Amino acid sequence: MSNAISCLLSPRSIAVIGASADPKKTAGRPVAYLQKHGFSGRIMPVNPRAETIGGLTCYPDVSALPEVPDVAIVLLGAQRAHEAVKQLSDMGCKAAIVLASGYTETGEEGAQRQQQLKEAAGSMRILGPNTIGLVNLTDGIVLSPSGALEMDSFPVGSIGVVSQSGGILGSLLSRAAARGIGLSKLISTSNEVDLELADFIDHLADDPATDVIALYVETVRHPEKFRAACLKAARLGKTVVAFKVGRSEAGAQAAVSHTGAMAGADTMYDALFRQVGVIRAQTFSDLLDIPAALATRRRLRGKRIAVLTSTGGAGTLVSDDLGAAGFETPAPDEATAATLRALHSGGEAVLDRNPIDVTLAGLRPDLLRGAINALLASPSYDALVVIVGSSSLAMPELLVGAVQECLPNSDKPIMAYVSPHAPHIGALLTRSGVPAYAAAESCTAALAGMLHAHEFTVPDDDDSAAETGSVAVEVPAGTLDEAQAKALFAQFGLSCTPEQVVADGDQAVAAAQELGGPVALKLLSAEILHKSDVGGVALGLGPESIRDRLEQMKADVSAHTGVQPERFLVQKMVKNGVELILGMHRDVLGTAIMLGMGGVTAELFKDTTMRLLPSVDGRLRGLTHAQALAMARELQTWPLLDGYRGRPPADVEALADAVVAFSQMVAQLGDRLLEAEINPLFVLPAGQGVMAADAIAVLA
Amino acid sequence: MSNAISCLLSPRSIAVIGASADPKKTAGRPVAYLQKHGFSGRIMPVNPRAETIGGLTCYPDVSALPEVPDVAIVLLGAQRAHEAVKQLSDMGCKAAIVLASGYTETGEEGAQRQQQLKEAAGSMRILGPNTIGLVNLTDGIVLSPSGALEMDSFPVGSIGVVSQSGGILGSLLSRAAARGIGLSKLISTSNEVDLELADFIDHLADDPATDVIALYVETVRHPEKFRAACLKAARLGKTVVAFKVGRSEAGAQAAVSHTGAMAGADTMYDALFRQVGVIRAQTFSDLLDIPAALATRRRLRGKRIAVLTSTGGAGTLVSDDLGAAGFETPAPDEATAATLRALHSGGEAVLDRNPIDVTLAGLRPDLLRGAINALLASPSYDALVVIVGSSSLAMPELLVGAVQECLPNSDKPIMAYVSPHAPHIGALLTRSGVPAYAAAESCTAALAGMLHAHEFTVPDDDDSAAETGSVAVEVPAGTLDEAQAKALFAQFGLSCTPEQVVADGDQAVAAAQELGGPVALKLLSAEILHKSDVGGVALGLGPESIRDRLEQMKADVSAHTGVQPERFLVQKMVKNGVELILGMHRDVLGTAIMLGMGGVTAELFKDTTMRLLPSVDGRLRGLTHAQALAMARELQTWPLLDGYRGRPPADVEALADAVVAFSQMVAQLGDRLLEAEINPLFVLPAGQGVMAADAIAVLA
Repeated sequence: MSNAISCLLSPRSIAVIGASADPKKTAGRPVAYLQKHGFSGRIMPVNPRAETIGGLTCYPDVSALPEVPDVAIVLLGAQRAHEAVKQLSDMGCKAAIVLASGYTETGEEGAQRQQQLKEAAGSMRILGPNTIGLVNLTDGIVLSPSGALEMDSFPVGSIGVVSQSGGILGSLLSRAAARGIGLSKLISTSNEVDLELADFIDHLADDPATDVIALYVETVRHPEKFRAACLKAARLGKTVVAFKVGRSEAGAQAAVSHTGAMAGADTMYDALFRQVGVIRAQTFSDLLDIPAALATRRRLRGKRIAVLTSTGGAGTLVSDDLGAAGFETPAPDEATAATLRALHSGGEAVLDRNPIDVTLAGLRPDLLRGAINALLASPSYDALVVIVGSSSLAMPELLVGAVQECLPNSDKPIMAYVSPHAPHIGALLTRSGVPAYAAAESCTAALAGMLHAHEFTVPDDDDSAAETGSVAVEVPAGTLDEAQAKALFAQFGLSCTPEQVVADGDQAVAAAQELGGPVALKLLSAEILHKSDVGGVALGLGPESIRDRLEQMKADVSAHTGVQPERFLVQKMVKNGVELILGMHRDVLGTAIMLGMGGVTAELFKDTTMRLLPSVDGRLRGLTHAQALAMARELQTWPLLDGYRGRPPADVEALADAVVAFSQMVAQLGDRLLEAEINPLFVLPAGQGVMAADAIAVLA
Repeated sequence: MSNAISCLLSPRSIAVIGASADPKKTAGRPVAYLQKHGFSGRIMPVNPRAETIGGLTCYPDVSALPEVPDVAIVLLGAQRAHEAVKQLSDMGCKAAIVLASGYTETGEEGAQRQQQLKEAAGSMRILGPNTIGLVNLTDGIVLSPSGALEMDSFPVGSIGVVSQSGGILGSLLSRAAARGIGLSKLISTSNEVDLELADFIDHLADDPATDVIALYVETVRHPEKFRAACLKAARLGKTVVAFKVGRSEAGAQAAVSHTGAMAGADTMYDALFRQVGVIRAQTFSDLLDIPAALATRRRLRGKRIAVLTSTGGAGTLVSDDLGAAGFETPAPDEATAATLRALHSGGEAVLDRNPIDVTLAGLRPDLLRGAINALLASPSYDALVVIVGSSSLAMPELLVGAVQECLPNSDKPIMAYVSPHAPHIGALLTRSGVPAYAAAESCTAALAGMLHAHEFTVPDDDDSAAETGSVAVEVPAGTLDEAQAKALFAQFGLSCTPEQVVADGDQAVAAAQELGGPVALKLLSAEILHKSDVGGVALGLGPESIRDRLEQMKADVSAHTGVQPERFLVQKMVKNGVELILGMHRDVLGTAIMLGMGGVTAELFKDTTMRLLPSVDGRLRGLTHAQALAMARELQTWPLLDGYRGRPPADVEALADAVVAFSQMVAQLGDRLLEAEINPLFVLPAGQGVMAADAIAVLA
């Protein structure tokens, strides 16, 4: 496989099927761009209606080619592309790039054409269809008609790009070039009839010219391959950054249980990315901003940022945004402040604050160098942001030169914020190893990305997933009622609230007396999953009030649902517990465990987090205790579990055990388990465990 | 005043005090830039060491000036600026721009210098000090040494800019110019020893060349002037957009009651801006992005956006971001879809989805014009975003021309997202009336800004504030305990939970019996504001358990605080209520009412909103019922009050009454009331009112 991809990225001979002699036309561009950007191998245009194209001999059809090309670019329409692909495959061509659109993206008929294309390719590898091709900047090979290739030259660097959209490839290529951000390879995979995202991540992980991998993702078609490729990259010290579209689709997803509704497919991507060390770019701009910082190979080891400025406003702007994202901008320590003051004895400049403002000291190279070196050397700072002000417009070399000279003295990150419109200064800085940004949010995102990259550790295969014990369970198919679901969960070690099933008021009174304290009364039904929505839950009852309440509940439920309820649960109410929700979600990305803060308020804020269950040899495994703990700590409302404002610290160890137990149940039952949820799961004060107060389970 | 500002912005004669003959130096630039940008009036450089500067006669000092200048630019340092200012004032000069820094921004000594400067100015108006001056693009007058003026020309337009930072002026000027965004005036007010933000908002509201006002705000020094100026602009149909730094300082603010801690000064700016129709730019980029859209004077009347694209990926990107922000991108209605299909009979293009993707139809002018006109005419859409793809790099005029031709056919907003790096195409579009953006987030922010501008109605002075009734209250000074605070609040019509004050276990048991149902037991103390933090609150007790609990509470509180508690409150617990928090906050911007969702979870999410109380003739007034209702609806957790998931709808009318009553209390007590808070305020089901369950009040 990797051989075919190497060949695809670095062919020595290329056939261009359907090449046009008009370089203005899409079909005319690949040959023109190959020549313009200096391809040194053999180019063989194929077109029955031309003698030569761009001075090259043109061949009437594939069979007339004088040699088997390493790679073919097929520019024919969807109606004819598969014929050329068949011929190329038959003659032994290793890979073809199919640009035609009109396949799966257009509907059923297109999907059939795509299948036909796949069959025609046989053992030949296909990039596309509906792709804009690829660009190998490391070796100066451009196999694409992208209009972005109109540019004369591109900075070559260590960022490899894989995009599932063709248009986005051109966007990233041109934007990176304008900013001085060097790329190594760009590949547009688009419809992915064959070669796909994970194949190229895997390849770029091995590519010596690539240090950072940037992805534009619409969908991950093969999660396990993707996972393996990203972990391989991480092990080789290469960070993957991904921008994924589709955030707003999440809201549209309808699902039976809360879990589905609250989680949504997009949060599954969050989980997937987090688990394999992929940094998720929150904006499209981040997809270049973060890799540009990572490509410097500098290490951000903490959150303390020095901001050196010659223009007060922009320094404040950057510090403010850093602060809002949780970074710190402490004032210089005493020794550093003394060094700064010594650089500029006398004068008005206040150099011992942060931002360190050298406006009043004037822009002098010695002062700048001294300040930059002092800040980089300071034990108080983990990174430096240098602000480029309007004063640099007249003399860009002054600041750029000073920064460049200081670069070798430290491995801490240095980046620049360019306050006026000055793309030339930004590009100059970026090319010289100081990534420059025109937005404060970009600086912040880049630093946050560097911190993530520094903090991620590749999970050890051996302990990444707890082996699921084998619990012998007898489980009926269909939707379980609450009592049945709890019985199932209990077999895996999950503890539930004390409760009794009752059928009428007398039994309810007796149960309330026996359980003691305030009790909850709940409709017991396998049909109605969300009891509280139909008036099927009443809280804080005692023996004196439960009889009437039961009658009222009967009336309410029957009014809401048309069903006459016959069984109820009387349940001891839990005191002093923190309410959580523990569930599962399954979609194309896999099976995930979802942990969220419970209660109606938290539900509105969707305070949840997920972890995909690892699959080993085709069998799911549960989560580790450490993973479960990490999930709890990711919740925005984690402080509620951690003794917030005098509350007793909750039993987070027991919570982690419960998450592990639940995950083992989900892993063991596998596809048989269609839905499972505990809501609420009460986490009691430390040492007292957890208690499932309601449960849903649906089995196939 | 306005005369002096008119004169400052459009002088016929200018003295440049301390001008340098070296145009590279800061002091040399004002004369050079005035000449470069074609000032037609008289320029009088003052410098004892030069005969001529830029070919102009140079005068040795202020007294040697041949005429009284309309305006003087003072380039001297802080040590000498006040002397020149005094001379200028004495000779009758109307206004001076003082560029020197070294005043209040550097500390106490600087503050004294600034006071000296103010005194020296007398009746002459001062812009600055520490300012970079101003630029009047409407009339081609540049009174600034900003490096951004190195550019040869600037698009002139209808956006007026006021910046409290000098460097930011250069940043906005150069960024706008590069993007084809036309500005009218830019003024940097900086230290604001005299002329300030509100003065220029007021002036630009009257300026016929200005339609939109953009502000870079560090602090609003005179909230009432600011308010009046912004409302004047709104009444004249001019929208104000403000970027305010200082979001992350909010977290640092320490405050005794929750209100202060949860609200923070930055949210006061949110309230101020919201109440006067100022759109808050969330990023610095928004500060040009939103005005650029507003400057088209087109109206966005709804949330339904058509996205027309020739590149699939970028169309998805823009739609996704719009969707995440609550915009809709519905498919074309039947008639529009038919029109689109008729434009391109045959072929693969799927034209009846949104984004409307014309990639496969090919970029043809007739098709583009037809599609743009059909989408603008469609009753299904309120605005159109056109995506510029990489294919336009080779032939920009095709798309730009088509869009331009269609502009006059509709007054709906049209904007462009430029996917590749193509600033020239973006600037071309923007200059021709189609604001162009390089980030999806910018499109979304611009559309959101237009929608806000459309929806804001200037409050009618007569009903903007309810006249505060005069309640005769006898209030002790100092911190009130809970019972006293509730008694105070009750005088203003706020209802509280039934409760009894007790001193020991016997009294507590009796109280619990009399109140009935589960009760709460609370420490009663004026010293300890946050009872729950020290173990001073217990919920869900009955007569059987309250005695022991009281003893435990005594022990807990005394362990936490060292104080032996002597009085307790036994309180009937509220059922079925939604927990809110109602408080006040006072800082330099004024006095505000804060409403937030209560409970420990909501507190972590800081789900609060604020309204500043209006001041009429120096007296505060309360809020109106409509304002109070609007506050409740702004909460993210508003659904909890609105019958979320089968809950009974809460008594929001009674809530609004309570907010009004609380606001009237705050207004009437004025500065005597140092702190006041109800937490929790329970909102009962509709018709049952609200109930204050805890209360804090501190009086001077």
